[in-house]
Amino acid sequence: MNVVQKYGGTSLDSIEKIRAVAKHIASFRKEGDGIVIVASAMGGTTDELIALAHEAGSEIPKRELDALLATGEQKTVALLAIALQNLGVPAVSMTGFQSGFITTDHHSKAKIKEINTERTEQFLREGKVVVLTGFQGISEGGDITTLGRGGSDITAVAIAAQLGWDCEIYSDVDAIFTADPKIYPKAKKLDQITYDEMMELASTGAGILETRSVEIAKKYNVKVYIGKSLEGNERKGTYVMNDSIYIEDMPVTGISISDDCSIYSLRGIANDGVAIAKLFQLLADLHINVDMISKQTSADNTCTVSFSCTDAQSKDLDRAIESHELLSEITIEKQPNLSILSLVGVGMATATGVASKVFSILAQEGIMYYQITTSEISISVTVNRDEKIKAVIALCEAFGL
Amino acid sequence: MNVVQKYGGTSLDSIEKIRAVAKHIASFRKEGDGIVIVASAMGGTTDELIALAHEAGSEIPKRELDALLATGEQKTVALLAIALQNLGVPAVSMTGFQSGFITTDHHSKAKIKEINTERTEQFLREGKVVVLTGFQGISEGGDITTLGRGGSDITAVAIAAQLGWDCEIYSDVDAIFTADPKIYPKAKKLDQITYDEMMELASTGAGILETRSVEIAKKYNVKVYIGKSLEGNERKGTYVMNDSIYIEDMPVTGISISDDCSIYSLRGIANDGVAIAKLFQLLADLHINVDMISKQTSADNTCTVSFSCTDAQSKDLDRAIESHELLSEITIEKQPNLSILSLVGVGMATATGVASKVFSILAQEGIMYYQITTSEISISVTVNRDEKIKAVIALCEAFGL
Repeated sequence: MNVVQKYGGTSLDSIEKIRAVAKHIASFRKEGDGIVIVASAMGGTTDELIALAHEAGSEIPKRELDALLATGEQKTVALLAIALQNLGVPAVSMTGFQSGFITTDHHSKAKIKEINTERTEQFLREGKVVVLTGFQGISEGGDITTLGRGGSDITAVAIAAQLGWDCEIYSDVDAIFTADPKIYPKAKKLDQITYDEMMELASTGAGILETRSVEIAKKYNVKVYIGKSLEGNERKGTYVMNDSIYIEDMPVTGISISDDCSIYSLRGIANDGVAIAKLFQLLADLHINVDMISKQTSADNTCTVSFSCTDAQSKDLDRAIESHELLSEITIEKQPNLSILSLVGVGMATATGVASKVFSILAQEGIMYYQITTSEISISVTVNRDEKIKAVIALCEAFGL
Repeated sequence: MNVVQKYGGTSLDSIEKIRAVAKHIASFRKEGDGIVIVASAMGGTTDELIALAHEAGSEIPKRELDALLATGEQKTVALLAIALQNLGVPAVSMTGFQSGFITTDHHSKAKIKEINTERTEQFLREGKVVVLTGFQGISEGGDITTLGRGGSDITAVAIAAQLGWDCEIYSDVDAIFTADPKIYPKAKKLDQITYDEMMELASTGAGILETRSVEIAKKYNVKVYIGKSLEGNERKGTYVMNDSIYIEDMPVTGISISDDCSIYSLRGIANDGVAIAKLFQLLADLHINVDMISKQTSADNTCTVSFSCTDAQSKDLDRAIESHELLSEITIEKQPNLSILSLVGVGMATATGVASKVFSILAQEGIMYYQITTSEISISVTVNRDEKIKAVIALCEAFGL
């Protein structure tokens, strides 16, 4: 079988583990299989490199940070190729530039423009396992770039899309569950999930596969398997694919929990549309990725706009509020320490009563909730962080997760 | 002034030292100066990476080792560029492939074929300090290569040759001395030395600048300064250049000492030329780089061939002797634990009596010497390693070094 496999940093955080991954690859590889491995930096390496960069200077130019961070994966792929060859598996390592990952020049969050797989395919024809650096590429101008959070997953799914192969993402996660088993131990494993469900789960904090990877998988119809490294060759994880089976009377597939959330409410904004456009332009300039947004109009022709952002972004925003003309004129309330709970399921698109069930369960449990947002296949609410676990358990039990 | 500066691993073995090097560069940089920095891996990094590779597998494919080792310099250049920018010095890092160092595909000892300085010159025109990875390049097929021992010096001298600039090699060595001050504390500093003298000193063990670098410097007439890092901006080291001044009655410029030496003597070889050719082909196949070679013919139409090699190479050779047909027929004597002492000086080409003076001094001191080889500007003898210091002191005093 031809397959792209991605191994994450925690599967590769020591030489012993790198050798174990090599053994895993050797154990299932059969004559004639095409295998591309995408490897992350050894666990901890990226943080160490970032710490070194901070010691080198307080301002870190992103071009140089990318060049620095790219060494992490380069180190892993060379070591993994050595380990594979020592098991008799022909293997070659390739960095981002060697494997033709051409990206935009947005350092630290570059997007893939094209992948020239010529050399990769040449090596595959020679019967070699190709071990690619995840997370990195090269701009058209020849600068080393990185793809940002979840970058190695993006690399894996993108090369799988280009080759028309399946993609397996190995990490320390067993599978996708209906809820985080650490919070709700009775959560059930999902054998399959759709791209859309996975995207909602990922973007609201399930933290297993970044939205960008799932978007690429969906667009190019790449079947993605998510499972635990080195668990033998049985596939006990979750497949992310288009034709997921769901049970009609189970509208909710899973629940995701995102802890890192503050909500800002801005009152007294002129309701002419211009002020709000300016406000969101400002947020964009601050690179604040607002998630939940709601707007309500008051009788006096002003409106209130609420939005959520992460704790890190809220610090930037607080600084901007102090100094920015636009914001200093507006009444701003900040509600920190919230959690976003998102119930996700393609069944929700056709099922009714999900929202009312959510609200009545939370009311029964006496749990305050604030903002509500919905999509075709999800409903999200914010609750106080200290009531999160109580809410998750109540919702999981009510929806049979 | 336009200059290429190379900083070695011991000058860069911590973030503090990287910042100190950045300060040094900032301190002498003037508006309009063109500055290219060549940096080695942080001290110790290369050894750590090699140890990791050995843990990954007992056989280390050289292509993968090169990819692994190349991360060392990439890390340093990114950190140095960050440190420079934080001092207000515009700077960019470049790896071997980015800086267009096209090499042969002899992994671990690649040779530079050409240097495409287009991007480097573009960055220089933009007023940026260009920080290049030493030691590494890329083959025409796109594989990462390394240049072998002294590779960063080669990078520095080669880019200086290409740009037509001077080259400064900074390390923990103050300068070139007439002899190793650790062995002969009264050794004198040399302000200037010729390429040929430097080449003899380097190849016979002075260990400061590899022969390959000096060869390139000589070929392209690159003025090379050798000195200690971070000693302020005064140049107290040694210039290696063509028009060195030497004193007529001082035929010897310096003495170099190489400890790592065994001598093999092979007796009873058929004197038809064929056997000797086969022998040296075998040595070449074993990658044994013979240094001193001498041949003497016996009355019975056989001959004796002696040659020196390093201790590491002698192990390979001992293994080959046991198994190789050609060698098993010949009487082989091995003399381990020798030192090669080489007296070097361009003045030697025209001066007479140097050899006889060497032999009479050694005789006076009662020091046994074995093989002798000479070149236009040098004379080398082997002595027992435990008599080395006594011999060096006697020779230094006799020749006023």
